[in-house]
Amino acid sequence: MRRQTFVSRLDDRLRTDDYADVDASANGLQVGRAEGTVERVALAVDAAEATIAEAIERDADCLLVHHGLAWGGFDRLTGLHYDRIEPLVEHDVALYVSHLPLDGHQELGNAAGLADVLGLGSREPFGEYGPEYVGTRGTAEDTYDADDVATLLDKELNTETQVLDFGPNEIEDVGIITGSGVDWVEAAADAGLDALVTGEGKQKAYHEARDRGMNVFLAGHYATETFGVRALGRLAEEWGIETTYIDHPTGI
Amino acid sequence: MRRQTFVSRLDDRLRTDDYADVDASANGLQVGRAEGTVERVALAVDAAEATIAEAIERDADCLLVHHGLAWGGFDRLTGLHYDRIEPLVEHDVALYVSHLPLDGHQELGNAAGLADVLGLGSREPFGEYGPEYVGTRGTAEDTYDADDVATLLDKELNTETQVLDFGPNEIEDVGIITGSGVDWVEAAADAGLDALVTGEGKQKAYHEARDRGMNVFLAGHYATETFGVRALGRLAEEWGIETTYIDHPTGI
Amino acid sequence: MRRQTFVSRLDDRLRTDDYADVDASANGLQVGRAEGTVERVALAVDAAEATIAEAIERDADCLLVHHGLAWGGFDRLTGLHYDRIEPLVEHDVALYVSHLPLDGHQELGNAAGLADVLGLGSREPFGEYGPEYVGTRGTAEDTYDADDVATLLDKELNTETQVLDFGPNEIEDVGIITGSGVDWVEAAADAGLDALVTGEGKQKAYHEARDRGMNVFLAGHYATETFGVRALGRLAEEWGIETTYIDHPTGI
Amino acid sequence: MRRQTFVSRLDDRLRTDDYADVDASANGLQVGRAEGTVERVALAVDAAEATIAEAIERDADCLLVHHGLAWGGFDRLTGLHYDRIEPLVEHDVALYVSHLPLDGHQELGNAAGLADVLGLGSREPFGEYGPEYVGTRGTAEDTYDADDVATLLDKELNTETQVLDFGPNEIEDVGIITGSGVDWVEAAADAGLDALVTGEGKQKAYHEARDRGMNVFLAGHYATETFGVRALGRLAEEWGIETTYIDHPTGI
Amino acid sequence: MRRQTFVSRLDDRLRTDDYADVDASANGLQVGRAEGTVERVALAVDAAEATIAEAIERDADCLLVHHGLAWGGFDRLTGLHYDRIEPLVEHDVALYVSHLPLDGHQELGNAAGLADVLGLGSREPFGEYGPEYVGTRGTAEDTYDADDVATLLDKELNTETQVLDFGPNEIEDVGIITGSGVDWVEAAADAGLDALVTGEGKQKAYHEARDRGMNVFLAGHYATETFGVRALGRLAEEWGIETTYIDHPTGI
Amino acid sequence: MRRQTFVSRLDDRLRTDDYADVDASANGLQVGRAEGTVERVALAVDAAEATIAEAIERDADCLLVHHGLAWGGFDRLTGLHYDRIEPLVEHDVALYVSHLPLDGHQELGNAAGLADVLGLGSREPFGEYGPEYVGTRGTAEDTYDADDVATLLDKELNTETQVLDFGPNEIEDVGIITGSGVDWVEAAADAGLDALVTGEGKQKAYHEARDRGMNVFLAGHYATETFGVRALGRLAEEWGIETTYIDHPTGI
Repeated sequence: MRRQTFVSRLDDRLRTDDYADVDASANGLQVGRAEGTVERVALAVDAAEATIAEAIERDADCLLVHHGLAWGGFDRLTGLHYDRIEPLVEHDVALYVSHLPLDGHQELGNAAGLADVLGLGSREPFGEYGPEYVGTRGTAEDTYDADDVATLLDKELNTETQVLDFGPNEIEDVGIITGSGVDWVEAAADAGLDALVTGEGKQKAYHEARDRGMNVFLAGHYATETFGVRALGRLAEEWGIETTYIDHPTGI
Repeated sequence: MRRQTFVSRLDDRLRTDDYADVDASANGLQVGRAEGTVERVALAVDAAEATIAEAIERDADCLLVHHGLAWGGFDRLTGLHYDRIEPLVEHDVALYVSHLPLDGHQELGNAAGLADVLGLGSREPFGEYGPEYVGTRGTAEDTYDADDVATLLDKELNTETQVLDFGPNEIEDVGIITGSGVDWVEAAADAGLDALVTGEGKQKAYHEARDRGMNVFLAGHYATETFGVRALGRLAEEWGIETTYIDHPTGI
Repeated sequence: MRRQTFVSRLDDRLRTDDYADVDASANGLQVGRAEGTVERVALAVDAAEATIAEAIERDADCLLVHHGLAWGGFDRLTGLHYDRIEPLVEHDVALYVSHLPLDGHQELGNAAGLADVLGLGSREPFGEYGPEYVGTRGTAEDTYDADDVATLLDKELNTETQVLDFGPNEIEDVGIITGSGVDWVEAAADAGLDALVTGEGKQKAYHEARDRGMNVFLAGHYATETFGVRALGRLAEEWGIETTYIDHPTGI
Repeated sequence: MRRQTFVSRLDDRLRTDDYADVDASANGLQVGRAEGTVERVALAVDAAEATIAEAIERDADCLLVHHGLAWGGFDRLTGLHYDRIEPLVEHDVALYVSHLPLDGHQELGNAAGLADVLGLGSREPFGEYGPEYVGTRGTAEDTYDADDVATLLDKELNTETQVLDFGPNEIEDVGIITGSGVDWVEAAADAGLDALVTGEGKQKAYHEARDRGMNVFLAGHYATETFGVRALGRLAEEWGIETTYIDHPTGI
Repeated sequence: MRRQTFVSRLDDRLRTDDYADVDASANGLQVGRAEGTVERVALAVDAAEATIAEAIERDADCLLVHHGLAWGGFDRLTGLHYDRIEPLVEHDVALYVSHLPLDGHQELGNAAGLADVLGLGSREPFGEYGPEYVGTRGTAEDTYDADDVATLLDKELNTETQVLDFGPNEIEDVGIITGSGVDWVEAAADAGLDALVTGEGKQKAYHEARDRGMNVFLAGHYATETFGVRALGRLAEEWGIETTYIDHPTGI
Repeated sequence: MRRQTFVSRLDDRLRTDDYADVDASANGLQVGRAEGTVERVALAVDAAEATIAEAIERDADCLLVHHGLAWGGFDRLTGLHYDRIEPLVEHDVALYVSHLPLDGHQELGNAAGLADVLGLGSREPFGEYGPEYVGTRGTAEDTYDADDVATLLDKELNTETQVLDFGPNEIEDVGIITGSGVDWVEAAADAGLDALVTGEGKQKAYHEARDRGMNVFLAGHYATETFGVRALGRLAEEWGIETTYIDHPTGI
C-alpha cells in the first residue's frame, strides 16, 4: 500500500486532527517521507532504541507506536533524539504515532480493549480531556469484588496489579483510562463509578482514592496499553499489510 | 511559640519565597489564621483525611506536610477540598506546607536525607527547576553495584525498590530527586552520574534509562519523602515545640 | 430540598456554566458539601463577615449572594479568606454565588429588576461581555428628563443618585448595567441610547459621558444590585424553601 | 525650552521608563512631535474635550496630565479618540502624560502631596505594584480621629469624604494611594496602618475595611489627584516655562 | 454618500469582521470620524506621507488603502505616526484600510486580480491563514513555461520579476499570494501546484523552492497589490462616488 | 578536535546561551551526536539540500551555517525537514548553527564584517533585540554619498544594491543590520544615523525611509551574510581544523 494512503486511512479512522490541539504528541506520520510504500508494519507501545532496532531486525518499513519521540516537537536533533532517529533514517523506516487518539478511540483504543477483557457492556466515553475523551466506562455483567478484578487483570495482562480498595465491595460500573490515568479519580467518583482501572500510580492517587471512597486498580502503564496498537495491527492486516508485534514490557 | 513566629522562621529557613514562581504548591501557611500559638506540631508527608484526623487525634495545633491541599490554589471549597479543610477549621489546626523548598533544601530536604542514607560525600545541588534546584548529588565513599543500592534502600526506607540497571556496574556518583524525579534521567546522564535515585516511576523512564545507559532506582514516592518533614520536626523540637510524626505509607 | 437539587436547579436556570470562562467569580456552589439539604436560605448582596454572621443568626443552612468570596479562586485559606470561611464551615452553611449570570439574566437579574423600576418595555440584552451580556436595555413608556430618573431611583432604591447629565434632555431609551458598569458608556452611545443607569462611578466615566453626550446615572453599587438575589429568593420560595433577605447597604 | 529637552527632563525625573511594563498608560510624550518648543504648559488631571479645549483657549503648546488618552495604545483613531486628538493636532498642542510614575513619585507625586496636607512624617513608599510603588505612608505628628481626617480632607481638597471608620479610633500611621486605591486595604492592614486614604470607592472596599478593621477615607478620585500635576507645574516654572492649571473637578 | 454608509458597505462586502482576530492591521475605518460624507475617494496601495499628501492635493475626503498605519494599534501618536496622521486630521480625510480581507477576497482581491492577468480558470481559495484564506489558485488555459509567466507579469504589472524556476517546465496550476507570500511555498507544493506567484522575496524562499521543486515568481510587493484597491475603486464608482488612483510604486 | 570541544568553544565565543530566549533559531549543535571528532568543516550561509550535498561531496564532518533547519524546533520530521536531515544523518555530518549570535557579534559577526568593507571606525553595537544587539554602527573616515556606498557594496559583495536615497547627501554615520534588517529604519533615524545598510527589502521600508528621511541600502540577504561564517572558518583554521566555504548565492 502507498505510504500516503496508509497514513491517511489511519488518520481518518483515528480522527488524528481532532486531537491536534490537546495532545503534546505529534500524532500521525512523525518521522519519514510521505512517499514510498508500506509492506510490513511493526507494532509497539513505545518508540525507543530497543523497539526501533527490533523493527529493523524484523525488516519492517514502518513502526507504529502509541508513544512516539516528539512531545511538543523536537527542539533540536541531538542526544537521545538523535540516537533514536538515526536508525529510522538509515533504514528508511517511517514512524507512525497515535497517542491520545488511540487512548480515546471507543472501538480500537486501549481502554476499549481493556473493557473487552473486563467484559463491560453499556459502554460510553469516559475521561474528558478538553473537548475529547481518553477513556471508556461500562458496566460489568456480574458484580466483581476487588480481588476478582485484580486477579483477572494479572492473568490477562500478565502484570501485577496494585489495588487501592477504598471503594464499594461490589464493583459494577467501571471507568478505564489506560496508562497514566489517576488524575481521573475524582471524575470517576463524580460519575458514580465503583472503580477506576488505570496503569501507573502517582502518590496523590492513594489519598484521593481513600478520601473519595474509590477502588483504583494500578495495572501498569505498559500492560494496559498494548491493546490499541494491536487493534491497529489487525486493521492493517485487513488492508493486506503484514504486521508483527514487538513485545517489550517495561515493568512500569 | 507564636504561630506567626513559627511560620516566619520556617519560611526564612526554607526560602519559601524563592520558590513562589516555580512551585504550583502554595507553600508556607496554607490554611489557618496567622494569630495564635503553636505548641504541638504533627508531621506527615501528605495532607489528607487520614493524616488530618490523626493530627487532631494527637491533639496537634499545626500540621506540617510536604504535600498540601492547594495546587495552583483552590477554585472553590467543595468536594474533596471541603472534606479535608472542614476538620482543620473545626479544630483550628493550621496547615503549613513545604513542597519544592523542602525537596531542594541541601541540609533539611528530602534528597539531603536520602543522601545521608547512601553515605554520599562531596555534595552539590542537582536537578535544576527554573532558577532553583530540587535535589542533591554526591559521591559514594566506596563503589556500589546496583544490588547494593537496592538492598540498602529497601532496608533503610522499608520499601521495595524497582531497579532499571542500564548504567555502569560500578556506582559512585549518584543524583537524588525524591518523589517524582524521573524527568531528570537525561540531566543525570548529561552530568556524568552513574545512577539516579528517585521515588515513583513513569513509563518513559524505562526507555530513557535504557537508551542513555543510566541506573535508575525507583524507591517509592512516599518512602523517599519522609526525610524532609522529619528534619523540620527536629528543628521544631530545638525551638521547644513538641512534635509527633504520622507515618502513613501509600505504597506508591 | 436536597442541596444538590437546589444547586442544580439554580445552575440550570441561571446558565452558570455559560459564564464560566468570562467571570472571575467561581459561580454556583462555592463553599460547602454537595450533600445535605436546604431548608432555609439567607439572601444577601455580599458575602462578608457581617452577612455570614447574620445568616447564621437567622439559622440559615445556605447563604445565596451576588458577590462571593472566590475571585479567580483562593490562593490559600488565610487572612480575610479564613475569617470569612471559618463560620461557614463551623455552622455548615453552604455558600451559593451568582455574579455575572445574575447580572445578565433577562428575567431574574439585577438589570431586569431595575428595568421594572424604570418601567421599561421592548427590552433586549445590553452590555456585551465576551459572548454573553451583563445588562438590559429598554424603552420608557413616557419620556423622562434626568431629574425624573434620579428622583425615581432615589426613592425606589433608597439611594442618592449622582447624575452626569450630558445627554439629551428627553430620555427614552435606557441601558442598565448594575454595579460597576461605567465601562459601557461608549457602547451605550454607539447603541443610540439616551442614558446609562449603573451603580458606582469611576473617574473616567465623567469625561466619557461628557464627550460622548450621554446621561449617566450612578445610583450606587449596592443599591442597584439587590434585585437579583431577591428574585432568586422568590424562586426558592416557590420551590418550598424558606428565605430571609439580609439588607446590609454599603453606601458605595 | 526645546520640546525634546522638556520631555527628557520629565522622563528622567519621573523615571518614566521604569513603569513601562506595569502601567497600561503610555507615559511620556503621548501625542505630538518631539520637535518644536514648549513655552506654555497647561496642567490638568484628565485629558478630555473640556480640558483640551481650555488648554487651547489659554494658548498652551503642551498639555500635561495625569490621565492621558492611550490606555494599552489606540486600536484605531475613531470615535472618542478622534474627537479628543483632533484639536490637539489642529493646534499643535503636545500631550505629555504621567500616570503611575506620578502616583508613585515620593516627592512630586499625588500621594506625596496629600501626605503634606495630612502632615505626615517618617515617610516611606507604600502600595506595591509589581516592582514599583504607587503610594506613600507616613506617621501623623499628633493622633487624629476619623472625623479629624475627614474634616481636614474636605476642607483642603474641597471634597466630600466618605468614611468607612472600621479601624482604630486613634489614627497615626496612614497609607495613601490616590485615585483608585481601595485594592490596597488588605496591604494596609498587613502593614499595620491605622488608615488608608484614597480617592474613589468600590463595593468590595466596604466589607474588606470592615472585616480587616481598617479606616478607609474615600476623598474622591479627582480631589486626591491634583497634587502631582501641580507639582510638575512648579517644576516647569523653575525651568522658566509659563504654566496654567486647568481645574475641572469631576465629582467622582 | 454618508461616510457611515460607505464604511458599512465596504465592511460587509469585504467581511472585515471575519479577519479581526487574524490580521494585525486595524481594518475598516482606521482614522477619522464616522460622521460626514464621502464624495471623492483616493485609492492607494500604501498610506504614507506621499500618498496622503497626494490625496489631499486631489481633494479627496477619504483615502482607501491596502496598507494602513496601525499594525497592532498605535502605542502612542508620535514620530512617524504623528507625521502621517497630522495631514489626515488637518484636512479631515478619513482613512479606510483593507489588508487581509482584500488579499483574500475571491472576486475583488489582489490575488483575484492577478489571476485575471494570468487567465486562470477553475479558481479556488488558496493560502490558509487561520480560518481564512489570503490568496487564490487556478488553472491556466494553456500551459505556460517559466519565461512566459515572467514575461507576462513584467508587461502587465510593469515590474521586473525574479524567477526561481525549480519547478516543472510546464506550468498549469498556479497559486497566488500577493505581497509577502513566500511562506506558502510548502503549501503550494503540498497542494500539487506547479508555481507560486507572489510579491517580495525572502532569503528562505530560495532553498524552499529549490528543495520542494517549486517555481516561484517574485513580481514585487507593490506591483502585485494594486488590483484590490482599484477593484474597490470601481465598486465605489458604481455607488456614485468619484475616485482617483494614486500610483506610487516602491520598487520593492 | 573532539566535536564536543569544538561546539563548546564556539558556544562560548559566540555567547550562544545569551540569545536562547530571543532567537527562534536553535543555535549551537542543531543536528548530530556530541560524540566524535571534527576534522573538516564546511561553511555556508544556508543549510539546505544543495549546501548539505556539497558539504558531503567535500567530505566535511561538520556543516557550520548561519541559517539552520530548526526555527522554533521541528514539529515532526517529515517533508522538507526529512529531506534535509536524511543526508546529514546518513553521512554523520553534524550541523552547527549560529543565527543571531553571529549577527550580533561585534568582532566575528556579519555586520562587523560588512563594517570592515565600509571602513567604519568608532564602532558600537546597534539594533536592539530584546536585551541583545544584532548589528553594528560606525563612522566612515571620509564622507560618502549614496552612489559611493552602492558602488562599493556592489563591487565588494558582488551584488546589485537597491538604494532608497531619502536621507542626507553626505553619509558618515552608518548602521548595519545584515539580512532582514529593515525593521530598524526608525531606530536608525532616532539614533541620528545617515544610512542603514541591510540585506533584503520589505514593502514598508520604502515609505518609512522616505518619511523619516533615511538612506537605506538593500544589498541582498545572502550577500550581506557571508562574513560571519567565513570569520568562524578562520577561527576554526586557527584551531587546526580544515575548512571549506560553500558559496551558494540566492539572488535574494
